[in-house]
Amino acid sequence: MSALQFELLARSTANRARLGRVTTPHGSFDTPAFMPVATAAAMKGLTPAQIRGTGSQIILNNAYHLFLRPGGDRIERLGGTHRLMRWNGPILTDSGGYQAYSMSDTAVLSEEGVTFRSFIDGSKVHLGPESSMRVQNQIGADIIMAFDDCAPAALPAEDADERRVARTRGVVDHALRMEEAHERTLRWLDRCVQSHARKQDQALFGIVQGATNLDLRRRSVEGVCAHDLPGYAIGGVAVGEGTEAIRTVVEFTTPLLPDNRPRYLMGVGYERDIVMAVAAGVDMFDCVLPTRNGRNANAFTPQGPIRLRNARFAEDSLPIDPSCDCEACAGGFSRAYLRHLFMAEEMLGPTLVSAHNIRHFQRLMLDIRTAIREDAWSSLLVAWPCIGSDEAHSSTDEQT
Amino acid sequence: MSALQFELLARSTANRARLGRVTTPHGSFDTPAFMPVATAAAMKGLTPAQIRGTGSQIILNNAYHLFLRPGGDRIERLGGTHRLMRWNGPILTDSGGYQAYSMSDTAVLSEEGVTFRSFIDGSKVHLGPESSMRVQNQIGADIIMAFDDCAPAALPAEDADERRVARTRGVVDHALRMEEAHERTLRWLDRCVQSHARKQDQALFGIVQGATNLDLRRRSVEGVCAHDLPGYAIGGVAVGEGTEAIRTVVEFTTPLLPDNRPRYLMGVGYERDIVMAVAAGVDMFDCVLPTRNGRNANAFTPQGPIRLRNARFAEDSLPIDPSCDCEACAGGFSRAYLRHLFMAEEMLGPTLVSAHNIRHFQRLMLDIRTAIREDAWSSLLVAWPCIGSDEAHSSTDEQT
Repeated sequence: MSALQFELLARSTANRARLGRVTTPHGSFDTPAFMPVATAAAMKGLTPAQIRGTGSQIILNNAYHLFLRPGGDRIERLGGTHRLMRWNGPILTDSGGYQAYSMSDTAVLSEEGVTFRSFIDGSKVHLGPESSMRVQNQIGADIIMAFDDCAPAALPAEDADERRVARTRGVVDHALRMEEAHERTLRWLDRCVQSHARKQDQALFGIVQGATNLDLRRRSVEGVCAHDLPGYAIGGVAVGEGTEAIRTVVEFTTPLLPDNRPRYLMGVGYERDIVMAVAAGVDMFDCVLPTRNGRNANAFTPQGPIRLRNARFAEDSLPIDPSCDCEACAGGFSRAYLRHLFMAEEMLGPTLVSAHNIRHFQRLMLDIRTAIREDAWSSLLVAWPCIGSDEAHSSTDEQT
Repeated sequence: MSALQFELLARSTANRARLGRVTTPHGSFDTPAFMPVATAAAMKGLTPAQIRGTGSQIILNNAYHLFLRPGGDRIERLGGTHRLMRWNGPILTDSGGYQAYSMSDTAVLSEEGVTFRSFIDGSKVHLGPESSMRVQNQIGADIIMAFDDCAPAALPAEDADERRVARTRGVVDHALRMEEAHERTLRWLDRCVQSHARKQDQALFGIVQGATNLDLRRRSVEGVCAHDLPGYAIGGVAVGEGTEAIRTVVEFTTPLLPDNRPRYLMGVGYERDIVMAVAAGVDMFDCVLPTRNGRNANAFTPQGPIRLRNARFAEDSLPIDPSCDCEACAGGFSRAYLRHLFMAEEMLGPTLVSAHNIRHFQRLMLDIRTAIREDAWSSLLVAWPCIGSDEAHSSTDEQT
């Protein structure tokens, strides 16, 4: 028996959206699913009870952060992150590759993996397919991700990171670099599959790369899906290429993936992006937006985001969203109070607004699942005006 | 009918400890009571539900912070802090005088009050008996405190603040300064009583001053208790004078206060100080220790405090205190995980350890109340070894 089962329960006739259910050793989650990000095995100020209160059924940990601190060996001795953070539901870990590469000024990419300096103590560390599998095995997530080579969508001339990598690799042509990343991702997937083979209780997902080059995307799908894996992800998206490019890639790539496996669009995104991707047939999403924006006093509402530091909220007795049932809104905390908390730098502010923002995304997913079940896709636009609004999206370059 | 009722329910035969119950317009609390401090109308990362989960029945707000931000007029328009922070139990506010005087380098003390610069925008602001009553009226606390002149216990030569005040006032003799503070506190109490007279739903407590001079303390009790007030506080304690001096002042002053009124020892303190003061007949306590230490990874246990950043906890799977029923301990969060949260600067760490620390003090108060009810005072020392330990107290100069 596989570590993961995926049932398809309904399909929308309006588009390719699917309703499903994924079952893991730590329970099930409904798809389309939104996974909030507990980077270092903590969802910022939220306790597991508060995370559950947002309706989240599965959460994400970042292998990169946990690899550096407290370290894979220590986490393993402590029984993995389920036990450590007292979250008994499903957990997914990313491979750490993207962050090792993008978060360090000193990262050097090679066929072996990424070598970089730890942001904690400056020591030189290496992360590659085998060590990524190892740390994800140690963390004990229910779903783990292949270690991939995620080439930025931007041209070298426009992207400092990519220029540096291009220099270190002697690659000066962006098309060549994308080709290289695609092929290396396939070679690394072979190594991940082999390295992970012994762990039967964790489901390894492959990741399709290819940036905005649709021919590369097609070839990546073929290469990745040559491995019969419990799920597949679309990576290299939401790395600065813009909403329309995301749409083009997602609508092209998703239908190429096996119908009977969950499909995960990594690091996306705003409500509009999620709805677009669900309509294209994506089942799983993660994004740091709810917590990152929550920490910065930016609250999501169905009508679009509001900035709670704005003086116009100073005496506003309404909750963030009167229609919301989250801990902050149903608890009766006013915009005026939340603004005060941020002005006074009280950490209850980030906690409450993060709880609200995660609930906002989970309510969207609830409505998406209802729209599929009832085959009433167009009802979504009525309840969620932010889906159709350009104002609601100041940026789409949000990656975990 | 007064805004506050105080019932005495039992007395210890071993000492002067009393068991009681105070009833306010927002409900009752059992005495001896510990009041955790929600400085700016927020108990750091804890929601009101989490505060209630610690067993806290009454909390404290700081008028000084709320006076400066968001301001008394705004708080009044928003319906007071009960409504603002969604805490429907009793609230006590301090007068703001001590903080206005001690937290600003530019404070100038005069018969009118304290003039200082706002730490928020540098503007010149004034707080005196009338404006303190006004802001406390606006906040809407159930118990409000008289605006007093709190002279530091240290000699001018040893205390930079006091030297400065002495200079600005032309007072160079510490005994004269203490005398002045005592007499001014009485004059200011007259002004507070007059200014507050119209508000019948808030109980005004008078504050006894006199530093470590017992003759001044006696005269202060006489002067303050000349006003028939619903409660009385001992102020000017835990401002740097040391444990033995606190004990001397508390054991001398408390029995002089009316038996049928609650007695509040301001800004105290460690477990040992609280137990000593309860034995002397004190009914109410507040201290920032649980939350301040919680933010710094210092956790209280019945055996004494532990520093969770210590490397020896890195793989310790025990909770902070296996006997504790708080959200952190009963929730199964290990010392190893809490240490990780602090090392990773995750705000869940301060939240969980603050919740534990407040619960620690509330469990002490529960045991104190049981010891009085069952007239078994000596049982306390067995369950709370930290009461008798010198190691457990690195400092006693904690003031809210």
